[in-house]
Amino acid sequence: MTFDHAKKLLIAQLNPEPLGTEKIPLTKAYSRILSEDVITKVNIPPFDRSTVDGFAVRADDTYEAEENKPTALSIIGTINVGESPRIEIRKNQTVEIVTGAPIPIGADAVVMVENTQKQEFSLLIYRAVTHDENIMKKGTDLAKGEKVLKTGQLLGAPEIGVLAAIGMDYVNVFKIPVVSVISTGAEITKPGKDLAPGKIYDINAYSLSTAVKESGGKSICLGVIPDNEAALEAALKDALVSSDIIITSGGVSVGPRDYTPKIVNSLGKPGVIISGIAVKPGKPTTVAFIGKKPIFSLPGHPTSALLIFYLLVRPVIQSLAGNKIISEKTVDANLTTRLFSAKGRKTFVTVSLSRDKNQKIIAVPIQTGASGAITTLSKADGFIEIPANQQFLDSNEQVTVTLLTSKKV
Amino acid sequence: MTFDHAKKLLIAQLNPEPLGTEKIPLTKAYSRILSEDVITKVNIPPFDRSTVDGFAVRADDTYEAEENKPTALSIIGTINVGESPRIEIRKNQTVEIVTGAPIPIGADAVVMVENTQKQEFSLLIYRAVTHDENIMKKGTDLAKGEKVLKTGQLLGAPEIGVLAAIGMDYVNVFKIPVVSVISTGAEITKPGKDLAPGKIYDINAYSLSTAVKESGGKSICLGVIPDNEAALEAALKDALVSSDIIITSGGVSVGPRDYTPKIVNSLGKPGVIISGIAVKPGKPTTVAFIGKKPIFSLPGHPTSALLIFYLLVRPVIQSLAGNKIISEKTVDANLTTRLFSAKGRKTFVTVSLSRDKNQKIIAVPIQTGASGAITTLSKADGFIEIPANQQFLDSNEQVTVTLLTSKKV
Repeated sequence: MTFDHAKKLLIAQLNPEPLGTEKIPLTKAYSRILSEDVITKVNIPPFDRSTVDGFAVRADDTYEAEENKPTALSIIGTINVGESPRIEIRKNQTVEIVTGAPIPIGADAVVMVENTQKQEFSLLIYRAVTHDENIMKKGTDLAKGEKVLKTGQLLGAPEIGVLAAIGMDYVNVFKIPVVSVISTGAEITKPGKDLAPGKIYDINAYSLSTAVKESGGKSICLGVIPDNEAALEAALKDALVSSDIIITSGGVSVGPRDYTPKIVNSLGKPGVIISGIAVKPGKPTTVAFIGKKPIFSLPGHPTSALLIFYLLVRPVIQSLAGNKIISEKTVDANLTTRLFSAKGRKTFVTVSLSRDKNQKIIAVPIQTGASGAITTLSKADGFIEIPANQQFLDSNEQVTVTLLTSKKV
Repeated sequence: MTFDHAKKLLIAQLNPEPLGTEKIPLTKAYSRILSEDVITKVNIPPFDRSTVDGFAVRADDTYEAEENKPTALSIIGTINVGESPRIEIRKNQTVEIVTGAPIPIGADAVVMVENTQKQEFSLLIYRAVTHDENIMKKGTDLAKGEKVLKTGQLLGAPEIGVLAAIGMDYVNVFKIPVVSVISTGAEITKPGKDLAPGKIYDINAYSLSTAVKESGGKSICLGVIPDNEAALEAALKDALVSSDIIITSGGVSVGPRDYTPKIVNSLGKPGVIISGIAVKPGKPTTVAFIGKKPIFSLPGHPTSALLIFYLLVRPVIQSLAGNKIISEKTVDANLTTRLFSAKGRKTFVTVSLSRDKNQKIIAVPIQTGASGAITTLSKADGFIEIPANQQFLDSNEQVTVTLLTSKKV
C-alpha cells in the first residue's frame, strides 16, 4: 500500500469532527483552539475617546485659531480616563482631557496640548482642528456584532488580548485529544532501572509522549507493557476507555512474538485497516480502528517511530483537536550529497542543518546505517522526502526540510 | 536614549546567570531547558546486537558459501530480543537470531534470513559474510562517557528520547522564571464584569501573561490594580517577593496620575535605569531594577505593549530561563507600500502576511491610526523594523518579518 493510499484510508475512517468543546477561563486558554466564531457584544472603543492629551472643543470654535492669532476658550473642567463624561461643553468652552478619556457632550474634536497655552481661567489655542480630529469614535475599532475571531484559531497572546478586549473571561475551545502511548518488546526496560543483559532502555514511550504534547494532545505514557498477549490486551482495552488515540511501538515486524495485530483485531471493528506501508523508514507500520478510535502500531526503531508519528499520527491529533491552522515549519536548504530513494517506496531521510562558508543553509543527511538510533535522534534537525517515483535527489539540489519542533533553524 | 543603548543597559544590569536548577521526572521535561551537559553512563547499544533477522555465525565458516554451493551449519538454538546470550557458538555452528537480539559468544557476523534455507537440524547458507557484518557493536551508537546533550538545550521529543535511551528517568533543568503581570489605569475593568461609562476592558494583563508563557516563563496574572499609589505599591512589593520579573502596563506616559516610576524608585536600588526609549511605538517604556529583579513598565496601548515585550522582556525571560537557543521565527516578504520611520527613532511596524498572485509572500503594514488597538492585534502576523538612521523602507523592498507566535506563515 502506498503512503498516499494509506493516508487516504486513514482520513476516510477518521471522525471528521473534532472531539467536543469545553468552556474554560481565558487565563488558561493559551495554546488552545477556539471552537466557535467569536462575535463582539460590545463596541470598541465603547465611547468616543480622545487619542491625545489636550483639550476637548467644538471644532467650529477653533476655525480662526492661528499660530500668530490664538483663539481663547474658557476652561470649565477636566476629564480623566475612567470617568463618566458628565460635563457638557457649550460655545467657546473647553475641557482638559487626557488620552483615552471619554469626549464630553458638545465637544467634537480635541486640540493637542502642544498647540495650546493655559492661562489662569482660559485657554489659548494656536491651531484650528476639524470635526472628529484626535477622536476615536465609538465602535470604530470593533463594532458590536462584528466577527472577531474564527473557529479553529490557535489562541496565542494577541488572540487572548482580543478576547479580553471584548470582555470575555471564559472561552469555548475544543477538547484536547487524549493519546495513550505504549512500548512493547521483551528487550525494553523502563529508564531509571538497572539494565539486565540483553535489555535496552525504552525510548519510544518517552519521545512519542512528548511528540503528542508538541502536537496539541494530552499524553498518557503507559511505558513498557510486559511481553505477553494477556498484558498487551489488557493495556489496550484500558487505553480504549481512557483515550481517543492509542500508539504502540515495537513488535510490528515479522518476528515470532508479533501478536499486536491479532489482539487489535479481536478488540472490535473494523480492526486493522493498514498493514504495512510502502515507505522508508516505517514499512511495518499498521493502523487499526476500534470504532472511531485509531490504534497506530509504529516501528520499534526510535527515529522511524518518530518520523511516522509526524507523518501520520500528528495530523490525526490536530484534526481531532479542531486545529485548522496546520503549518509545518519548513526551511529550504541545499543537499550536500546525492540521496537515493528506496525502490518503489516513498523515502524520508533525516538531515542535520548547518551553514556553508557563504552562509547558505545546507542539509547533511544522517547516515543511519552505522551510527544508529540515538545519534540520529540527537543530530536530526528535520527530514526531507524523496517521492516513490523519483530515483534520487541530487547533490546541491534545493530541498525542503520539515523541521522537528525543538531544533534549531 | 536609543533602543540599542537601552538594551545594553538592560543586559549590563541583568544577572548573567540563569535562576537556578531543579531535578524533574523525564515525563514532565517537555519544553524545559537542560541545565547540565549530559554524559552517558551506559554504552548504546549495551551489547553487540544483530541488525537483521537471521543466523549468528563465525564469518570464517561462511567464506565458501555461494548461491550455487551453500555451506551447511548446525543450528544449536535461538536467541530472541531481551534474552541474555548464554549460548556459545563453535566451529560450524549457528544460532537463529532476531533483529536487536544479543550476539552469542563465538559468533562474529549474522547471515540474513533471506540468504539461508532451514533444514530439519541444519542451515544452508547461500552467501558469505564478513567479520561484524549485520552486527551493531556495543557502544557504537553512544560510547559510555560520551557527551549526549549540552546545557541550554530545549527538550523536545528527540532529546527526551535520547535521555530515556541512556536510562535517565530524572533530568536537571533550569527553573522557570516567574513573571507577575499588572495592569494599571483608572479606566481599566476586568473582563467578565459589566462596563461602566468611560471604562474599557483590560487587555494587557491577558495578552502579556500569555506572551510570558509563550516565552518559557510562568505568569502570575495580577489583573487590574486599583488606581491609587498605595494599591500599586502593595502590589509591586508582593510581586517582588513572589516573582523574578514584573511587568506593568499603562500609566507610563506623562499624565497627571503617573506615579509608577516614583513608587518603583522607592522600592530599592538602583530603581529606574531606563526612562523613555527612542523607539516607535513604545517611547514611554521604563525599566527599573530592584536588586537583580527587573520591573518593566510598558505602554498602555496593547500592540505597543506586546511589541516592547517581544523586543525587551522576552529575551530577559529566556536568558533567566537558561535558554541559549533563541531563534526568532522570521520570514522574508515583499513590502506592499513605502513606510517611513519616526524621525530619529527606531520604528517597528506591524504587518499582516499574505501571498500575491505569483504566490510570493507580501507584508501589508497595518495602519494603526484609525483602526485601533484590537484590529491591529487580531490582524498582525508579525512586525518589521526600520533603523533609526534610515528614512524609509521602499515599496516592493524585501523585508524580514519577525513572526508573532500563534500566527500563520
